[in-house]
Amino acid sequence: MAQQHLDPTDPTAGVVSGDALAGYLRAQATEFLRALRLHRETGGDVGGPARTKSRTGDNGNGNGSEASVDAARALRRSARRISASLHTFRPLLDADWSEAIRPELAWLSGTLAMEHAYAARLERLLLALHRLSGATVLPSQPGVAGMPGGASAGQQSSAGDTGPPAHPAAAQERGNLTVGAAKAGALLERQLTLARTRAHSTALQALGSSRFHAVADSIAVLASEVPLTPAAATADLRPQARAAEERLTDAVAALPLVTAGSPYNAEALIHGLSPDPAPHPQDAPWHQVRLLLRLHRYAREVLHGDDAPVDVRLLAAGQSLNRHRDASEAAAAAAQAARTPRIAPATAYALGVLHADQRHEVEAARFAFQQSWQMETVGTP
Amino acid sequence: MAQQHLDPTDPTAGVVSGDALAGYLRAQATEFLRALRLHRETGGDVGGPARTKSRTGDNGNGNGSEASVDAARALRRSARRISASLHTFRPLLDADWSEAIRPELAWLSGTLAMEHAYAARLERLLLALHRLSGATVLPSQPGVAGMPGGASAGQQSSAGDTGPPAHPAAAQERGNLTVGAAKAGALLERQLTLARTRAHSTALQALGSSRFHAVADSIAVLASEVPLTPAAATADLRPQARAAEERLTDAVAALPLVTAGSPYNAEALIHGLSPDPAPHPQDAPWHQVRLLLRLHRYAREVLHGDDAPVDVRLLAAGQSLNRHRDASEAAAAAAQAARTPRIAPATAYALGVLHADQRHEVEAARFAFQQSWQMETVGTP
Repeated sequence: MAQQHLDPTDPTAGVVSGDALAGYLRAQATEFLRALRLHRETGGDVGGPARTKSRTGDNGNGNGSEASVDAARALRRSARRISASLHTFRPLLDADWSEAIRPELAWLSGTLAMEHAYAARLERLLLALHRLSGATVLPSQPGVAGMPGGASAGQQSSAGDTGPPAHPAAAQERGNLTVGAAKAGALLERQLTLARTRAHSTALQALGSSRFHAVADSIAVLASEVPLTPAAATADLRPQARAAEERLTDAVAALPLVTAGSPYNAEALIHGLSPDPAPHPQDAPWHQVRLLLRLHRYAREVLHGDDAPVDVRLLAAGQSLNRHRDASEAAAAAAQAARTPRIAPATAYALGVLHADQRHEVEAARFAFQQSWQMETVGTP
Repeated sequence: MAQQHLDPTDPTAGVVSGDALAGYLRAQATEFLRALRLHRETGGDVGGPARTKSRTGDNGNGNGSEASVDAARALRRSARRISASLHTFRPLLDADWSEAIRPELAWLSGTLAMEHAYAARLERLLLALHRLSGATVLPSQPGVAGMPGGASAGQQSSAGDTGPPAHPAAAQERGNLTVGAAKAGALLERQLTLARTRAHSTALQALGSSRFHAVADSIAVLASEVPLTPAAATADLRPQARAAEERLTDAVAALPLVTAGSPYNAEALIHGLSPDPAPHPQDAPWHQVRLLLRLHRYAREVLHGDDAPVDVRLLAAGQSLNRHRDASEAAAAAAQAARTPRIAPATAYALGVLHADQRHEVEAARFAFQQSWQMETVGTP
């Protein structure tokens, strides 16, 4: 594993002091407050119900909703960075303050992330159903990367629809599916839209709560005054950044990368029919690496400031791990939907195919991670 | 693509005349008659019902049945080689005789192959169900190569059984499966065992038919007197062998090898939920290459006689295509079983996972073929 793509390990590089951390935290706090203001101005809608927005292209609330989604994303983005920096550079910050605010930031970004996660999961699963049906019509939805094979499906096919669907666009899409695939799609849409709607309400409640106002007040203080320890201003940030990178490389070293790098190793689906209710403990170390990779990336941002060079290797590795997480959760959602009582066998069959397909996406994402991780470092000084 | 692994394209090699073809056909005919005699001596059992033989390790009919399976395999083996040689070296043989016997040999080897095919398909599907359940207990059955990931499944799990199974061994195996996987396994076992039993009867009837006796008589003549054309004894076999190889390389060149060589391309499952009743026309060109590869291999045998060097590249390519064919047919059997009326949703779900798993085996086999095909030639003169 290349260990030299971070400046901290470069003995010729200059010391990066606590001032850089203070500057970074102030900038992120300012960004947080800007996003919060934008969010309030756009009506406080965290994104609108899933189907109104993404299935028909009509976002229901005019441009306000679109802007509000962007604002919520920006809020999450800065909350994650502040929280990560407090974690990585813990010794340089006031301990009491730091330990009080971190769980609050985690609560906030977790709560704000759920609605988007359900929307993206539904979109991923519907795209997969279309790909598996050999249909060319793909829902044109923003925000989710294309999946392999999807765009190249060359065969139009038609099958009966399954009763009056909620939306004309959905009906048009389902016209190209088998009954089983259409019913599976409708079931997933029902379940994930419900989950999304609930997440939407929860996020709105959170943003109106006194708990959130306390977080916002803390961030407002942070924007002007970063609670560094007395020694921090002149201390070197690089040992903490290096430690974050080492936690990442240690966790990567513990991954089964030899297996992952061997195509079609059939590992990801091994417990696809396991009676274990939580059948994929094998995913956990990968999820953990995803979080550590993020901490490492943010530590690099602190050190390099706006000049942070793009590390395409880290970028590709991170994208693979996002894909891994998304496919893992989509597979679980398909399996969960299959446990709905009284579904038709054809629906259950389609959900089984879909589950296996997403588990293979998990395997493909691990392969992609392995490939990007062993790449030579490019683009870093 | 390496084009030079066949002697015929080597201008320094000597002419191989029709005598070599006559020798090869006599040897294969003799082998056919030997296998037929062995088959009659061992009771004419083409293999015995699937479950009696392979599920419990007790072959029911004593060693006679085992020997009879070997004899049937040897019959198929020589029938295929004779038929292939008549096809490849057509211009050198009496046309009327050749055209009369070839369809008969195809009928015979096709009929004899069915029972083994159903048994192997069931075994492949049950092994996959075990792998997908994360179970360590694998049925120990002869004759089918291990599948990736199967042996390394490290987790024992237990779930309720599904009523009294037909065999104690089967019960023990099913103890490690979920209800859905166990029911899917029982359904496949019922359907494929029935198909196998029917194929067994059909094969026995075929071997007792006057049609078969006419074939055997023709082969008996061939063992002593090969109907070469007058010019054939001194004619060169290499142009025909080269043409067989060219048909192979042309067919390979038409395969989507760039896609196949890109791991996790997700092509094989694209029509996994297609409403098309024959959803996998994409498999046909690969099946065709499998047949052309076999014709090429047998042509090499004719040219080289007993000294035929082992071409590991051809061997690996052929094994990949066998795996492709087996996985394709197993996937179809799982999809077919899912169309059984009144099955439980859990059964249908397990069959969906199984279908997708086998389609990914199809994709993995194409990848393996692509890898072996682009290997440098090793071991050929």
